[in-house]
Amino acid sequence: MTDKQTEPRSGAQEQQKQGQHIKPQPGNSGQARENRARMLISCPDGPGIVAAVSRFLFEHGANIVQSDQYTMDPEGGMFFMRIEFDLDQLPVRLSSMEQDFEEVARHFRMNWSIHPLSRRKKLAIFVSKEDHCLVELLWQWQAGDLDAEISMVISNHPDMGDYVRSFGIPYHHIPVTPETKSEAERRQLELVNGKVDVIVLARYMQILSPALIQPYRNRLINIHHSFLPAFVGGKPYAQAYDRGVKIIGATAHYVTEELDGGPIIEQDVQRVSHRDNVAELKRIGRTIERVVLARAVKWHIEDRILVHQNKTVVFN
Amino acid sequence: MTDKQTEPRSGAQEQQKQGQHIKPQPGNSGQARENRARMLISCPDGPGIVAAVSRFLFEHGANIVQSDQYTMDPEGGMFFMRIEFDLDQLPVRLSSMEQDFEEVARHFRMNWSIHPLSRRKKLAIFVSKEDHCLVELLWQWQAGDLDAEISMVISNHPDMGDYVRSFGIPYHHIPVTPETKSEAERRQLELVNGKVDVIVLARYMQILSPALIQPYRNRLINIHHSFLPAFVGGKPYAQAYDRGVKIIGATAHYVTEELDGGPIIEQDVQRVSHRDNVAELKRIGRTIERVVLARAVKWHIEDRILVHQNKTVVFN
Amino acid sequence: MTDKQTEPRSGAQEQQKQGQHIKPQPGNSGQARENRARMLISCPDGPGIVAAVSRFLFEHGANIVQSDQYTMDPEGGMFFMRIEFDLDQLPVRLSSMEQDFEEVARHFRMNWSIHPLSRRKKLAIFVSKEDHCLVELLWQWQAGDLDAEISMVISNHPDMGDYVRSFGIPYHHIPVTPETKSEAERRQLELVNGKVDVIVLARYMQILSPALIQPYRNRLINIHHSFLPAFVGGKPYAQAYDRGVKIIGATAHYVTEELDGGPIIEQDVQRVSHRDNVAELKRIGRTIERVVLARAVKWHIEDRILVHQNKTVVFN
Amino acid sequence: MTDKQTEPRSGAQEQQKQGQHIKPQPGNSGQARENRARMLISCPDGPGIVAAVSRFLFEHGANIVQSDQYTMDPEGGMFFMRIEFDLDQLPVRLSSMEQDFEEVARHFRMNWSIHPLSRRKKLAIFVSKEDHCLVELLWQWQAGDLDAEISMVISNHPDMGDYVRSFGIPYHHIPVTPETKSEAERRQLELVNGKVDVIVLARYMQILSPALIQPYRNRLINIHHSFLPAFVGGKPYAQAYDRGVKIIGATAHYVTEELDGGPIIEQDVQRVSHRDNVAELKRIGRTIERVVLARAVKWHIEDRILVHQNKTVVFN
Repeated sequence: MTDKQTEPRSGAQEQQKQGQHIKPQPGNSGQARENRARMLISCPDGPGIVAAVSRFLFEHGANIVQSDQYTMDPEGGMFFMRIEFDLDQLPVRLSSMEQDFEEVARHFRMNWSIHPLSRRKKLAIFVSKEDHCLVELLWQWQAGDLDAEISMVISNHPDMGDYVRSFGIPYHHIPVTPETKSEAERRQLELVNGKVDVIVLARYMQILSPALIQPYRNRLINIHHSFLPAFVGGKPYAQAYDRGVKIIGATAHYVTEELDGGPIIEQDVQRVSHRDNVAELKRIGRTIERVVLARAVKWHIEDRILVHQNKTVVFN
Repeated sequence: MTDKQTEPRSGAQEQQKQGQHIKPQPGNSGQARENRARMLISCPDGPGIVAAVSRFLFEHGANIVQSDQYTMDPEGGMFFMRIEFDLDQLPVRLSSMEQDFEEVARHFRMNWSIHPLSRRKKLAIFVSKEDHCLVELLWQWQAGDLDAEISMVISNHPDMGDYVRSFGIPYHHIPVTPETKSEAERRQLELVNGKVDVIVLARYMQILSPALIQPYRNRLINIHHSFLPAFVGGKPYAQAYDRGVKIIGATAHYVTEELDGGPIIEQDVQRVSHRDNVAELKRIGRTIERVVLARAVKWHIEDRILVHQNKTVVFN
Repeated sequence: MTDKQTEPRSGAQEQQKQGQHIKPQPGNSGQARENRARMLISCPDGPGIVAAVSRFLFEHGANIVQSDQYTMDPEGGMFFMRIEFDLDQLPVRLSSMEQDFEEVARHFRMNWSIHPLSRRKKLAIFVSKEDHCLVELLWQWQAGDLDAEISMVISNHPDMGDYVRSFGIPYHHIPVTPETKSEAERRQLELVNGKVDVIVLARYMQILSPALIQPYRNRLINIHHSFLPAFVGGKPYAQAYDRGVKIIGATAHYVTEELDGGPIIEQDVQRVSHRDNVAELKRIGRTIERVVLARAVKWHIEDRILVHQNKTVVFN
Repeated sequence: MTDKQTEPRSGAQEQQKQGQHIKPQPGNSGQARENRARMLISCPDGPGIVAAVSRFLFEHGANIVQSDQYTMDPEGGMFFMRIEFDLDQLPVRLSSMEQDFEEVARHFRMNWSIHPLSRRKKLAIFVSKEDHCLVELLWQWQAGDLDAEISMVISNHPDMGDYVRSFGIPYHHIPVTPETKSEAERRQLELVNGKVDVIVLARYMQILSPALIQPYRNRLINIHHSFLPAFVGGKPYAQAYDRGVKIIGATAHYVTEELDGGPIIEQDVQRVSHRDNVAELKRIGRTIERVVLARAVKWHIEDRILVHQNKTVVFN
């Protein structure tokens, strides 16, 4: 109740009406966006890496907009770098640039990749009955805060179908029982494989098998409703209540074969007290879960995360 | 991805399908709820108040479930109390109980009220174009976390109409221009007066006139998108950016005639950095705003707030 | 750089020069303090408890200054209460009051105790080489924020002797080796038993044996340098680094026979990033540890903590 | 109570016994430290800056250990950079390197500086009666967390003299009255000018005149005991109490001629409630103040702060 004018959402917004109460996807305005890309590099540290990379970009006419780097240990550690750059006519010049970079990369034994902003990542969201994380992701997406395509939602329950479809997003109901589990996973894999870049488990309450985990290594994000590594496994709020903790949390992590053991992307917490019973912990926790998961998804989409062994480097 | 079973929402849920993708309103299960009430008291401090009140309740057969009190200053200050109690057959016994309490109240010069849980508060939500606070309130409401009725949404824009009506909630579009402002307020007042208990300004970007403020004193909640008293007035995120603060915040407060000057109910903050431009501050701020407003509304609904002069006592 | 006058420390301060750079112990000013006490009650919940207790206090002439209560579960749970009250001539009237209360207590099967503020708790602080928690406690104590007597500091190292003695506090250096451990504990017990009310382990890096734990059940406070139950045991910062957590914490708890498994009193956390190595985590952690431990000690001293099974009720 | 061994302080520690209960100043071990430096750059943004700087360093044999950059606005904004690098035989090669860099700097119109770690910054701490910020700085300094020299403490009160001198640090008592103020400032300036690099106002309750501010522009750090810009000026905790805020804070900033209006370096906050009176707010605030000030001082010492107009870029 403070302005006489409303403050318009920033950023140009492409019109792509998909459903009923949807606002369109945003992004940096057309041309600028076309010519921007992000480069991710990890390699053993050594002298001259930054010089070589920045010189390469300069000589190819690219302008560095943002650059972050991190060296685990100046003596013999790993080196990580994220560069955001603009390049005139990026779409037509990218592939030759990538070819040229091979020489630099080989010299420093780099793992590297370039991600043009125009190539929006495709997401599949898995959900069970608890809807808060899904609702948050869809809300942030339609508010223009998640610069991605949501290709589909997959659920073992039919409940959220109407809601999801009202956004123009396909909803696949694939029930899972002990007997049908492997068949269900086969169908899930068929739906996503080669079609989506990232899978987000938005409180999907089934344990995935390696067949799904392996093709999405470091691209499969889960939200666990505790401050890991405390309270691994089922019913973490009940565990937290029993232990009498004074703060609860949530953890977004990449899924590996070890239950709740993959690289941690983001965590956040909230103070609680003896007055909060398990139901209250769940209620408080829902807000932490959705914020933490949305942050992790956003950072992944914006190519801000590098994984090394079982840990993440997050340039945010 | 941690349980093999989903965790069911706690609390009994009355079935009252109102719209498309709605889950019903929850609450404590029937009978218990029928017989529970909350008592709010404020009076000049003095000896024997707690004894008199708790003895009164005991002798009337009530069982105190929760009690909070606060004395501003043991010598001559104000005394505040909130008691939650159960009483068999409350609905039929309440009015005689209230009559009996008059004697106690007179003796200690109390301001007091009793709020049976069965009498759910009726809310009107005012909104302009920014929808995040409205979406949050509706989501918390349908998740059963706001134990109230949402009687209507009033907006000076038509945008959110379909969305709100999909919950089965009436949506009144009342445009406001400098010329039509007083007429618009007359229509608003007509809609709410005597029909709703609380008005929530969920990023409603018009300054209200005293005609609307006065009948809803201490029942009209606004969210201001700054950490008050910093950045009163318009465009607080731009103000925050210009000042270079390292933390931004949001403030829920009761509306008074003084712009952004009413009693503060709740505040929260988030760390930012030099990297965050105004658009980014707004994005980060949206999450704080909706969480802070939802907390304030919840506390008001649960009769946890007592106002004294320009400050709140919040028993949470 | 904002006032032209300094702001004096609040509260009367008794003069009791003990050492070199010491400011005296504070507290509420003389008379008021003499007549104030705190009552702690826990018992099975049932109707009439609050009424009975507050009526008892009223009829004995006591004025309730602050009262907190908590019921675990309205149906058959435990009831906890803390009342702060003033009573004229408390010192001479306390013992007959306690005698009279026996009847109330028996009726409701209460565990209860009354703590006059004039009977300051006596503390022993145990410390090893890391001095930050000790320094914090001594600083808060001399600033008047810890209303207790520090009777002695016991350490397995001589390092902090001069510093502690400069406050006028006895320092006992009791070396501990695997061979001398039981003899060392015998000497420790001899020093504290019957002479101190509370033992604070301020980064004391020895595991205590049951002989010391049992007489100080719920009166022996430890600070563990992790967010329990994550990272129980040794080198928690190294564990946290290896797991790649994004937030680190510290936990104050009462010591039981189970390593790092006792009732949690307080926890707090701080955000960290991939940039923080183990040394940096320790540095950041030190500030959390000392704040968390000091809060826990303060709450214990002010009789704000009730223990039930393995959890705490903290009225703060 | 978790390890059987104590965890030794990390980092080599040079022995330089200065006083009674002092641990020596730490730092990266000798040789490494000798050869490390930090470079700060700010200039109008444009293509090729990072390439030019990193190529320059590479060709001079320097190895980049850490690099941070920030561009206010890709189109025509300012560019800020901090590089930490190692260079063999830095002490003998630095001045010719600086000379060579002039060409690069001129081309991009840079403001720049190089800070070898071996040249420890010299601090003067100003304090009045409230000692908590001074105590914190001295504790962090002796714990090895502040890599600087503390050249002197200046106070308008004699109170902390013995304490400060026990660290081997000179203490200058310069009383200030309205009549003697300008003479006092003349003496202060004489003590610091050309001898100390940074002045820290650790709750120094006198307003400085421009004569002292100007020579220490962006090198004079103050702690204000509120969440600026809320509660500028005197008695901010009383102001906060009167306004009924639910969160209090502290702000470290560079001092300018405008009271409490200079560039903000760091802020932090703590939740409070209606129960906290002014004395309690001050107590809670003390912990925030000392943590916030110590962080700001640490960042300044480590050359992490660049000032542009009235805002800071903090690379931390």
